Amino acid sequence: MINRLISKIQETKAPIVVGLDPMMKFVPEHIRQAAFSECGETLEGAAEAIWQYNKGIVDAIYDLVPAVKPQIAMYEQFGIPGLLVFKRTVDYCREKGLVVIGDVKRGDIGSTSEAYAVGHLGKVQVGSSFCSGFNEDFVTVNPYLGSDGVKPFMKVCAEEKKGIFVLVKTSNPSSGELQDRLVREAGAEGGLGEVAEGFRPVYEIVGEQVAAWGAGCMPEKGNYSYVGAVVGATYPEQGRALRKIMPKTFILVPGYGAQGGKGADLVHFFNEDGLGAIINSSRGIIAAYQQEQYARFGEQGYKDAAREAVLAMREDIASALERACG
Amino acid sequence: MINRLISKIQETKAPIVVGLDPMMKFVPEHIRQAAFSECGETLEGAAEAIWQYNKGIVDAIYDLVPAVKPQIAMYEQFGIPGLLVFKRTVDYCREKGLVVIGDVKRGDIGSTSEAYAVGHLGKVQVGSSFCSGFNEDFVTVNPYLGSDGVKPFMKVCAEEKKGIFVLVKTSNPSSGELQDRLVREAGAEGGLGEVAEGFRPVYEIVGEQVAAWGAGCMPEKGNYSYVGAVVGATYPEQGRALRKIMPKTFILVPGYGAQGGKGADLVHFFNEDGLGAIINSSRGIIAAYQQEQYARFGEQGYKDAAREAVLAMREDIASALERACG
Repeated sequence: MINRLISKIQETKAPIVVGLDPMMKFVPEHIRQAAFSECGETLEGAAEAIWQYNKGIVDAIYDLVPAVKPQIAMYEQFGIPGLLVFKRTVDYCREKGLVVIGDVKRGDIGSTSEAYAVGHLGKVQVGSSFCSGFNEDFVTVNPYLGSDGVKPFMKVCAEEKKGIFVLVKTSNPSSGELQDRLVREAGAEGGLGEVAEGFRPVYEIVGEQVAAWGAGCMPEKGNYSYVGAVVGATYPEQGRALRKIMPKTFILVPGYGAQGGKGADLVHFFNEDGLGAIINSSRGIIAAYQQEQYARFGEQGYKDAAREAVLAMREDIASALERACG
Repeated sequence: MINRLISKIQETKAPIVVGLDPMMKFVPEHIRQAAFSECGETLEGAAEAIWQYNKGIVDAIYDLVPAVKPQIAMYEQFGIPGLLVFKRTVDYCREKGLVVIGDVKRGDIGSTSEAYAVGHLGKVQVGSSFCSGFNEDFVTVNPYLGSDGVKPFMKVCAEEKKGIFVLVKTSNPSSGELQDRLVREAGAEGGLGEVAEGFRPVYEIVGEQVAAWGAGCMPEKGNYSYVGAVVGATYPEQGRALRKIMPKTFILVPGYGAQGGKGADLVHFFNEDGLGAIINSSRGIIAAYQQEQYARFGEQGYKDAAREAVLAMREDIASALERACG
């Protein structure tokens, strides 16, 4: 699947993933009204609104980008009806040929991570049958529990030819509270003379772990592992360091646009082959019509606004990469 | 809700939470067969089997314990039908008067954690209505993203009088890979002379954060915050240290029984008031009939075996606490 993602990036010339994180405040009034008059102001009504909204976005952008990243929390908040639409969105996007990255940030002790892995990427055994639950192509994974929490995903990925992105340095303002803490390196005696020697931030330690896990998870052909990493666009310097620590790791980069990341910040996340990273934008695309720049499209034109925003983002990244190489 | 949990612990004399983590291999043959002949070897069949199994367990133990902890992964692996049974289990347990701790280990950037918080503990706005998604009483939360990922849960807890347990030191074998790493303390110059000075393990740093978050989240009356912590029974020495760092934090302790934690290890997790901790056992109770000790009950008697196992666990903890105080 990592190879499929890469070849789709090359075909579309767009290292872009569209985050399908449909908050109700993004959904145009006419879609909300239609859904509420059909299903009431209920979880079902919200889910129907989100489905119609998502479908519009996907129809408008599926030929331009390699991948989408539905954030499951935005569906889970609407309970079962919301999760039905998560599943429907995953299925619809796969039918459209998009690679689907389920942003689920799961991670638990071994037996529990195994359940998440089969539920999201694999097949679960029921009697003598094997059934598929959500069937994304990739999911995001939280590393706080260590290898036990990650290896069951790696196992399922190997069987199903799928992939994961492990959280390394997240895009949010408080990510440093834990992730930037300086850790004493194994074997280091600690600051005899130069204090900085022998210390590394948590995100580098996790990055090294991801690189090590990934080394055992290379596809038959190709230069990138199917164990990827998440590193926020909002931390370009950390991205530069992590790019070196994890040379064969594909990096999923959230935080572009609405969260503050800019095209020029992104070049550090790519390798010299022009690959190695895929940049996510969520509300910057799906709610583009709410920005001044795309206001001319209006609520009715939210799909066209999304398409324009993808084209602008593709251009922004391409010119940043050109400037960096030039 | 933390006060309700505490008074239920006092009533039942059982600081015990039963983990409802129904793996298919725990479900007795007769229940599986009945469900499969009704719904086929499908996700629906698996979900029906789990529901009947859960209902049997809950009916057998609800008067003995204050709380249950369904592990959502064990339901999520069966897709939407599985999550429907998660919801049904939560509702059923609340009807029976049990406190429900959703073991969901969610955690994300701020806006996303907010969605998880309203979906699991609060109400989500749909038009002018407010709808409830899963409606647990507590959930577990992952701290890797820092305050941004935790505060939205705290806000919803304050509004809804609910609570969370933040992962601090998890029970699994590899938890130390990240959680035991030694971190340089803020302001410490690092090991001039005594190397150990100025370093603390990650779990202590997170424990301090939990204590700080919790200080702002005290119920009107009572000694314990509604921001709790997860610390594994398999690490009693770390539990002792964390008990001191977080004196007003209620600790949810997984890892008893099947994972290797013993009654004597548990005393460190309690305060002198005999409170401050609640011990989880999952397969040790729900699959007790598969242990030699309870084999006499047979598959048909799985509920009675579960009840016996709860009584034995209550006795084990009570005598360990007595020995510790005597």
